[in-house]
Amino acid sequence: MNSLSLVAPIAIQVELAERTYPIYIGQQLTAAVPGWIQAGLPQCQHAALVFDEHLGELASSLQRALSAAHFRCSLLSVPSGEASKSVEMAAGLWQSLVNENTDRGSCVVAVGGGVVGDLAGFVAATFARGLPLIQVPTTLLSQVDSSVGGKTGINLPNVKNIVGAFWQPTLVAIDTHTLESLPRREFVSGLAEVVKYGVILLPQLFEYLEQHADEILRKESPVIGHVVAESCKAKAGVVQQDERETTGLRAILNYGHTFAHALESVAGYGRLLHGEAVAIGMHMAALLAQQLGRVDQHFVQRQRALLERLELPTRFEANPSELWKIMQHDKKVEHGTLRFILPTRLGQVERVAGITERQVVEAIALANATTTGA
Amino acid sequence: MNSLSLVAPIAIQVELAERTYPIYIGQQLTAAVPGWIQAGLPQCQHAALVFDEHLGELASSLQRALSAAHFRCSLLSVPSGEASKSVEMAAGLWQSLVNENTDRGSCVVAVGGGVVGDLAGFVAATFARGLPLIQVPTTLLSQVDSSVGGKTGINLPNVKNIVGAFWQPTLVAIDTHTLESLPRREFVSGLAEVVKYGVILLPQLFEYLEQHADEILRKESPVIGHVVAESCKAKAGVVQQDERETTGLRAILNYGHTFAHALESVAGYGRLLHGEAVAIGMHMAALLAQQLGRVDQHFVQRQRALLERLELPTRFEANPSELWKIMQHDKKVEHGTLRFILPTRLGQVERVAGITERQVVEAIALANATTTGA
Repeated sequence: MNSLSLVAPIAIQVELAERTYPIYIGQQLTAAVPGWIQAGLPQCQHAALVFDEHLGELASSLQRALSAAHFRCSLLSVPSGEASKSVEMAAGLWQSLVNENTDRGSCVVAVGGGVVGDLAGFVAATFARGLPLIQVPTTLLSQVDSSVGGKTGINLPNVKNIVGAFWQPTLVAIDTHTLESLPRREFVSGLAEVVKYGVILLPQLFEYLEQHADEILRKESPVIGHVVAESCKAKAGVVQQDERETTGLRAILNYGHTFAHALESVAGYGRLLHGEAVAIGMHMAALLAQQLGRVDQHFVQRQRALLERLELPTRFEANPSELWKIMQHDKKVEHGTLRFILPTRLGQVERVAGITERQVVEAIALANATTTGA
Repeated sequence: MNSLSLVAPIAIQVELAERTYPIYIGQQLTAAVPGWIQAGLPQCQHAALVFDEHLGELASSLQRALSAAHFRCSLLSVPSGEASKSVEMAAGLWQSLVNENTDRGSCVVAVGGGVVGDLAGFVAATFARGLPLIQVPTTLLSQVDSSVGGKTGINLPNVKNIVGAFWQPTLVAIDTHTLESLPRREFVSGLAEVVKYGVILLPQLFEYLEQHADEILRKESPVIGHVVAESCKAKAGVVQQDERETTGLRAILNYGHTFAHALESVAGYGRLLHGEAVAIGMHMAALLAQQLGRVDQHFVQRQRALLERLELPTRFEANPSELWKIMQHDKKVEHGTLRFILPTRLGQVERVAGITERQVVEAIALANATTTGA
């Protein structure tokens, strides 16, 4: 365990049309959370903690801190895993909130990874027409991606995230200490989104990852804090400019994701972690961009080298034509026009329409034909 | 049947922080709806019509008009009645929208009364994180109240409207022709909310109702159009100033409703129509205000006379202490403080805290003790 951190947490302000909210990043933040909630929600007297069943200890310590600050607390546990993002689980939580006398003087605190954040966020967005939401993400993926940006949602059978709402949190408290107990494969998977921010927006972050790969894989504290903070800033910057995916700018966050969603779908959800699929998808997108003359081989190799250095995969055996078919049903397809986010150079991507099946199939085949570069 | 109206519909603009939307009020509007949708949603190519099962004919004629304007249409019928505002029904509609290939190039058109508007509105608010919503309210109550203001929602067992979202429509098309087939009791019930706007904001509307009660009860076209338009303007004006019930201003719309919710609850939902409960509740609120010296007897009698002139009830036998107990659990109670909206004069109300059980019980007893004034 780390010693008590004397370093002040990093605070990032997210400015949206309607309001601004802070993201705090640091170590051992539990004791500070009640004060942050009081600052953001002076009227709040009741916190409903929705937490991953495996995080009972963290939930209890948050409860103790909140009770000491005179919050009434309700503890609502949710089973781990994507299956919890269901209508039934949302309905169960809505009923639990009724039973716990939840009202507009309450807030929902989501403690867990993306599943809990998405589910609890959706429940917060829709209970009493909207309760304030505090995100306490505990996985790298949720810390650098899903906890920031206001996307919440649940799945229907066969359709992920199809029911949901844009619902911005009142604050996000990112305690990188929680990463220490995160399984290595899950931690590494989260790094794919970090690499993504480097490619789409931040060449300096990309270089930092190249230079500090070892410290990152050892989850060393100041390095991880920096990486998480840069990622949150990048995401917040994009979200601020396109909160509800109306201008198209937010689409750059989908770099690698059109391939990734198709890969996850053929693999069967769960066989590939999301970040693993994103890593493979970014490599395929880079190869597609190279084919189109948008980037050179050096770019493709450099991205692949970093992904592999961070122990991320860059290939997955799958039928390219099947992947192409699945992509045609991607949620991001707008009435028949599938757009790919493709790099033009490190730190810059563009939305590109008019990509043909032949080009996509070739990119997939190239990715899978490459021998490991390590 | 009225002849084809040559009168241009009344158009009201609702200006919210984020955007503006029009409310059109007129007769025989079906043919105009596709053009209005195209004007408001240039990208929209698909309309999912969610309609009350008893309004198949109206839904079909809307479908014909939309198809002629090259919209793809999906018809989704919903059983009449409050029971449709359930999690199960919402889940069924979400799945139907998936089956109908609904995406961000789609809109939801709600055709029916408050139940369909609230349910379809909630489904629109939460599908693909928000689809544009067109409200086509067909009852007087939904035309003057629920279709304007962006409240959507469903019920949980024993808790009305507890799950929902604020979701403003893209446009509201109010065809007062649909009122002709509305059962008299339901029509009259809707008039309670109209009287409410007169009391809380618009003395001229109150006087207009006094002067035109007969034409109103005969549903005469220009008079009804005026009454609906004034009501929508009043509601839009309040909603613009307090879209999400954060400043307290929107609370004035709850005049009579604290009593009404309790009355509906003891009566068992369905025995009293909502507007009937509101009429009784307004009379009780006026008596409470009189007790407190806020209005004189003349005000109370004048309001009662108009309600009764419009064939609305002003009394309901119920145990006053039981009503008081139910009020303590009203959703609008903020951590123990129940506030009543009470009149100070025609056209003005205030939020009043500190009302005692004795005062409320006496107001209820007084309402029920009065002999009919007609």
